[in-house]
Amino acid sequence: MNGGGTNPDVHVFAYAAAQIKKAMDVNHILKGENLVFWGGREGYQSVLNTNVKRELDHMATLFQMAVDYKEKMGYTCQFLIEPKPREPTKHQYDYDAQTSMAFLSHYNLSDHFKLNIEPNHTTLAGHDYEHDIWISSQYNMLGSVDSNTGDPLLGWDTDQFPMDVKKTTLVMSVILEQDGLAPGGLNFDCKVRRESTNDEDLFIAHIGAMDAFARGLRNAVRMKEEGVLSNMVKDRYSSFDNGFGKLVEERKVSLEDCESFILKHGEPEQKSGQQELYEMILNRYV
Amino acid sequence: MNGGGTNPDVHVFAYAAAQIKKAMDVNHILKGENLVFWGGREGYQSVLNTNVKRELDHMATLFQMAVDYKEKMGYTCQFLIEPKPREPTKHQYDYDAQTSMAFLSHYNLSDHFKLNIEPNHTTLAGHDYEHDIWISSQYNMLGSVDSNTGDPLLGWDTDQFPMDVKKTTLVMSVILEQDGLAPGGLNFDCKVRRESTNDEDLFIAHIGAMDAFARGLRNAVRMKEEGVLSNMVKDRYSSFDNGFGKLVEERKVSLEDCESFILKHGEPEQKSGQQELYEMILNRYV
Amino acid sequence: MNGGGTNPDVHVFAYAAAQIKKAMDVNHILKGENLVFWGGREGYQSVLNTNVKRELDHMATLFQMAVDYKEKMGYTCQFLIEPKPREPTKHQYDYDAQTSMAFLSHYNLSDHFKLNIEPNHTTLAGHDYEHDIWISSQYNMLGSVDSNTGDPLLGWDTDQFPMDVKKTTLVMSVILEQDGLAPGGLNFDCKVRRESTNDEDLFIAHIGAMDAFARGLRNAVRMKEEGVLSNMVKDRYSSFDNGFGKLVEERKVSLEDCESFILKHGEPEQKSGQQELYEMILNRYV
Amino acid sequence: MNGGGTNPDVHVFAYAAAQIKKAMDVNHILKGENLVFWGGREGYQSVLNTNVKRELDHMATLFQMAVDYKEKMGYTCQFLIEPKPREPTKHQYDYDAQTSMAFLSHYNLSDHFKLNIEPNHTTLAGHDYEHDIWISSQYNMLGSVDSNTGDPLLGWDTDQFPMDVKKTTLVMSVILEQDGLAPGGLNFDCKVRRESTNDEDLFIAHIGAMDAFARGLRNAVRMKEEGVLSNMVKDRYSSFDNGFGKLVEERKVSLEDCESFILKHGEPEQKSGQQELYEMILNRYV
Repeated sequence: MNGGGTNPDVHVFAYAAAQIKKAMDVNHILKGENLVFWGGREGYQSVLNTNVKRELDHMATLFQMAVDYKEKMGYTCQFLIEPKPREPTKHQYDYDAQTSMAFLSHYNLSDHFKLNIEPNHTTLAGHDYEHDIWISSQYNMLGSVDSNTGDPLLGWDTDQFPMDVKKTTLVMSVILEQDGLAPGGLNFDCKVRRESTNDEDLFIAHIGAMDAFARGLRNAVRMKEEGVLSNMVKDRYSSFDNGFGKLVEERKVSLEDCESFILKHGEPEQKSGQQELYEMILNRYV
Repeated sequence: MNGGGTNPDVHVFAYAAAQIKKAMDVNHILKGENLVFWGGREGYQSVLNTNVKRELDHMATLFQMAVDYKEKMGYTCQFLIEPKPREPTKHQYDYDAQTSMAFLSHYNLSDHFKLNIEPNHTTLAGHDYEHDIWISSQYNMLGSVDSNTGDPLLGWDTDQFPMDVKKTTLVMSVILEQDGLAPGGLNFDCKVRRESTNDEDLFIAHIGAMDAFARGLRNAVRMKEEGVLSNMVKDRYSSFDNGFGKLVEERKVSLEDCESFILKHGEPEQKSGQQELYEMILNRYV
Repeated sequence: MNGGGTNPDVHVFAYAAAQIKKAMDVNHILKGENLVFWGGREGYQSVLNTNVKRELDHMATLFQMAVDYKEKMGYTCQFLIEPKPREPTKHQYDYDAQTSMAFLSHYNLSDHFKLNIEPNHTTLAGHDYEHDIWISSQYNMLGSVDSNTGDPLLGWDTDQFPMDVKKTTLVMSVILEQDGLAPGGLNFDCKVRRESTNDEDLFIAHIGAMDAFARGLRNAVRMKEEGVLSNMVKDRYSSFDNGFGKLVEERKVSLEDCESFILKHGEPEQKSGQQELYEMILNRYV
Repeated sequence: MNGGGTNPDVHVFAYAAAQIKKAMDVNHILKGENLVFWGGREGYQSVLNTNVKRELDHMATLFQMAVDYKEKMGYTCQFLIEPKPREPTKHQYDYDAQTSMAFLSHYNLSDHFKLNIEPNHTTLAGHDYEHDIWISSQYNMLGSVDSNTGDPLLGWDTDQFPMDVKKTTLVMSVILEQDGLAPGGLNFDCKVRRESTNDEDLFIAHIGAMDAFARGLRNAVRMKEEGVLSNMVKDRYSSFDNGFGKLVEERKVSLEDCESFILKHGEPEQKSGQQELYEMILNRYV
């Protein structure tokens, strides 16, 4: 109830560590290619009774121990952390993709972990469905996707089946762009909502969600092949592709150089972001 | 409107850089001890038209340029980043304390910046008023506090004057614990709400808010002197202070060691988090 | 800044009333068919300085005065109230459809007003985009639609152009079901976002949004013609269509009758809500 | 799982009705003075499979049946409805105080029910802790208080013990103002949080919360006796106490009268709302 790796009691910490060892041993035998650390209760209910720093130090120690054991075993499966912002604890330490990346970077663990993004956790953290998938992919940290859906207006994890083709299109675009997820993949929680009580509901829910991702993939492929949106984005940043912009890109420019550039070229022009045009074009694929 | 350091147009980037140089030059002359980077529009309105990675790379380049120029000037003022999650842009890159720390750590800038936390931005990111102050202090990243207050149930930045003595007590506890904020400090936005139109409202608002922090400081001092809560927290983690726990703390333990410990000692006992007791004791100081 | 009809100062109240009279006079000359009351600042910033009851009594008085003047003029335009939960005030009195309906019902004004629903205000109140349209239509209170869109994860009114065809399909289904909106209609706020600065952005945004509603209308017509979903809903409630259910529907049954029914028929069976099936079928039309 | 009074199956409806009869019979024998209807699952998970109007009609029928049976029994206990916006269902019909009042008013049930407000449900609906207590009291609809507390930044019902003396002061002020709650009262959910596992936690939690209300009551009494804030509020609305304002209050004024008033007296003056002053004065009592 008070976390495993972040528990105030070392006895619980040791118990969690022993369980991880067991999971790794079993996973090794089964030739598992991924191992997800979902810190179900790694967080705090109240800052009053919590030493956040000490808890996070212990968490890092536990992860390091798992990395060491994995290397000792000669084991090559992908370690994944699954961010979630809240529920069951008030504040979970793996709040979202970037908070998890901050933790990994601070404790020198970035090379050993990727992220398993569950978009309903992302919306629970206040970001768009696709945000954590997008941002973790851009930093080469997207390892797998738990493809459930939440309700953006509800504050708990509804674990619904994804049925929004616009959203699956955006997700599949990111996955296409990074050439797939292997050894990770798309994973559905194998259940239906409490009110869906027929046996066939389980099949219907999976079929509907798989269809939504299949349509999303086909849309994403068409978008990529036609390249309309990606070329528009590329053009938008083209001033960094050569000349002074390329020097900035290569970090060969100082504040003084920028001042000289402005003294010579004056104020920049206003350039429209054209958000509505992008949205309208996306609608042609969905 | 589309950011400075993260603008898609290098011309705007250069303009932002030239302005930063000017601000640094003026700050140097005025012997300023702090310089806050508030990335007012460094974020995105839509992922569709945005290359997040390229924008963040540019932002890091701009910060590095500022660090280089500062060193060249022989200037010692504290650089600060002020996190804010949203508004005016849909998603601001400096979302909260840990997202900003992830950015600084990834781009090797952590040694050159601290954070200027504005608690109304923290609540806007979905965390408790004191959360970002607490967590940034624990990682030695708390440099200053913009001491406004938001409304936890509203989704925009109301910039109210802090009047909640429980909250100011928690903030002052953190500041006491890290031996002050210097060269940073507590800063109020010098204005009142649109509906408070008397000249005297400005004075009343400042006096009321200063009183709230003064009461908070006195409460925090009493709490620290009596040490009841801090001793309870210390005891809660005491199993890590010696024996097997101390070995964990010193990272001298492996997964196999933990397994052996559990095989020998069995399942851990359940230990109450006693949240309500902590809350009740806090109430005696407020 | 402190409201018109709900202002603590009767002088402001009178000014608001005089402005409403002028708007009605002009609207009459122009043969306007609708008049929207958007209580832009009718709400409170703090309960501490507010007499909520007195303010709402005054608001009702003002509406009654407008109704009286309309009747005196022999004027037949539709009066509409536009709910909004917050922003610019912390709490707006016309919070959402049902809060507005509570107000109208309590003050005997229901026969003289309908609602002008803006779905971005609905999401700001924590309900689904289509919720207020759906519920006000079911009580014959839907008069018009301000067809902007918000961002469900942001806490302020983004007034975006609607581009989500699933949502426009649901809205057009409700409008089809109630045989149109006349004399009301679909109304876009005639502007684009701050970052869309080209003249053509205005056209693109309107075209994209009109297309989204046109696709939504075509989907809704197909859904209605094929009748799959509506028949499923009808079947779901069919136990109320005859026998004991019909008696309940006609309010001819007492608690004792229900007790007898259960003593005779025993516990009810579990029946699946089949939410995923409904969602999957909807996806075939979008 | 799909509600009682709003269930699509009349068999379940009858079962719910029979259970209500039984509860009323038992309550009568035990001389219960209150009966709370908490519509735990009266709401919808998806509008797609739901006939909202038909469900609410049935709910009203069920309440009317309970009213009829109560009259037949010669039973005088207070019926109470407990609003809650969401969880366990996505949208609960008794969303908040005003939505419940809209329902009662529409179906002519207002004379037979009062509200049992649970402030953690209020914050879950996006309103301040004290909002529903305040607004239902002003319309003479506040019957009882479930005195739990939520977390304004979490989206589910945390059912914490109230420890915020500022909030209990505001609640007790409303209760003082309406001369008490009888036959209702303050009711705590008799449990502690999952992580508080000592037997004594149950006592500590209740004592701490009772203390918070006791301090709140003493503060509210002092506030009422000194009358500073209430006099400031009274003065703020004093322009409605005589002259033209009194005529408005008595509904003896038309739009034309207001126009004449403005033509004679011109534009109103700007008057400060002085929110910060009110907040600062409140702080002197807390």
